[in-house]
Amino acid sequence: MPTIKKIDHVAIVVEDLDEALGFWRDKLGLPLNHVEEVRDQESIVAFLPLGESEVELVQPTSGENGVARYLTRRGPGMHHICFEVDDIEAYLRKLRLSDVRLINEEPVVGTGGKRIAFIHPESTHGVLVELYEITSEEPQIRIDRARELADRALASGQVMAAGVWGFLRGLRAQDDRLKKLIEPER
Amino acid sequence: MPTIKKIDHVAIVVEDLDEALGFWRDKLGLPLNHVEEVRDQESIVAFLPLGESEVELVQPTSGENGVARYLTRRGPGMHHICFEVDDIEAYLRKLRLSDVRLINEEPVVGTGGKRIAFIHPESTHGVLVELYEITSEEPQIRIDRARELADRALASGQVMAAGVWGFLRGLRAQDDRLKKLIEPER
Repeated sequence: MPTIKKIDHVAIVVEDLDEALGFWRDKLGLPLNHVEEVRDQESIVAFLPLGESEVELVQPTSGENGVARYLTRRGPGMHHICFEVDDIEAYLRKLRLSDVRLINEEPVVGTGGKRIAFIHPESTHGVLVELYEITSEEPQIRIDRARELADRALASGQVMAAGVWGFLRGLRAQDDRLKKLIEPER
Repeated sequence: MPTIKKIDHVAIVVEDLDEALGFWRDKLGLPLNHVEEVRDQESIVAFLPLGESEVELVQPTSGENGVARYLTRRGPGMHHICFEVDDIEAYLRKLRLSDVRLINEEPVVGTGGKRIAFIHPESTHGVLVELYEITSEEPQIRIDRARELADRALASGQVMAAGVWGFLRGLRAQDDRLKKLIEPER
């Protein structure tokens, strides 16, 4: 039997990542340990670990995707909850056999190279539920993706939130080019 | 400095607790380990532990309270997220000094005798956030409250969801009177 292990994260959709970090990191006191752009979902995601779980702050970077439409329709707030499972294929099979409506019938690739699938809120009593199975490549993929985000932002001269820059600067502390260009950390 | 320790629970407001258990317990596979009536909030709450956290399913028992109004306005879904802190008074003091808008300026008593306080969504970017500090009396209070709920339901002949009855029956397995009256466990 596939088993469910823990709450992996709770995702919160926000209008402005840096303003949201002003509460979640600076006032509530959660550490910021990772930032990643999710191109499929046209969003920037900040990861704030706590115990065995994370709070994820998600800012859409386009008005056209599902997260942006959620933000427009319902305002900022909790968007989905993600559970870690030990065997995502077996879990999805079990749910399909129970007539649970899945958004992803098979796992897709999410942040950090995770294998993920969403369950439709129609089957969960109103909650968008994500399942994920960790992969051995995940820690390296996470770092690579954050570096890619730093490099792309740098190349395009993209204006980014100071809190996000602070994180990316830490990651690229050895990179002189980045040191000269980025804003001072607040 | 007061510290934040873990996600204690994510609360989900539902229209029908037993139907919701049909997904969260029976299909997703979370165990049901506690049921409690929260009289102040006119709600029945089912607790489903997972790792170091819990999922709480909340069904309002009156149309007049905040949870019921939330359900009417937004439909079923995630209602709030609760974090455990080591010193709730110190945490609230720190938040007040940061101009965070609190719903409870001082801790109040929540489920299981917890000392809790809510932060207003205006300060958190749309999320109703609960903080709680565990007390040494909590495990005993939890059991007492579940027994009270069983006794009251029994005395009033209240029709309760089969899933909730299953839990309460386990708790009152020694009670002959209850054994004769309750529905068969599904």
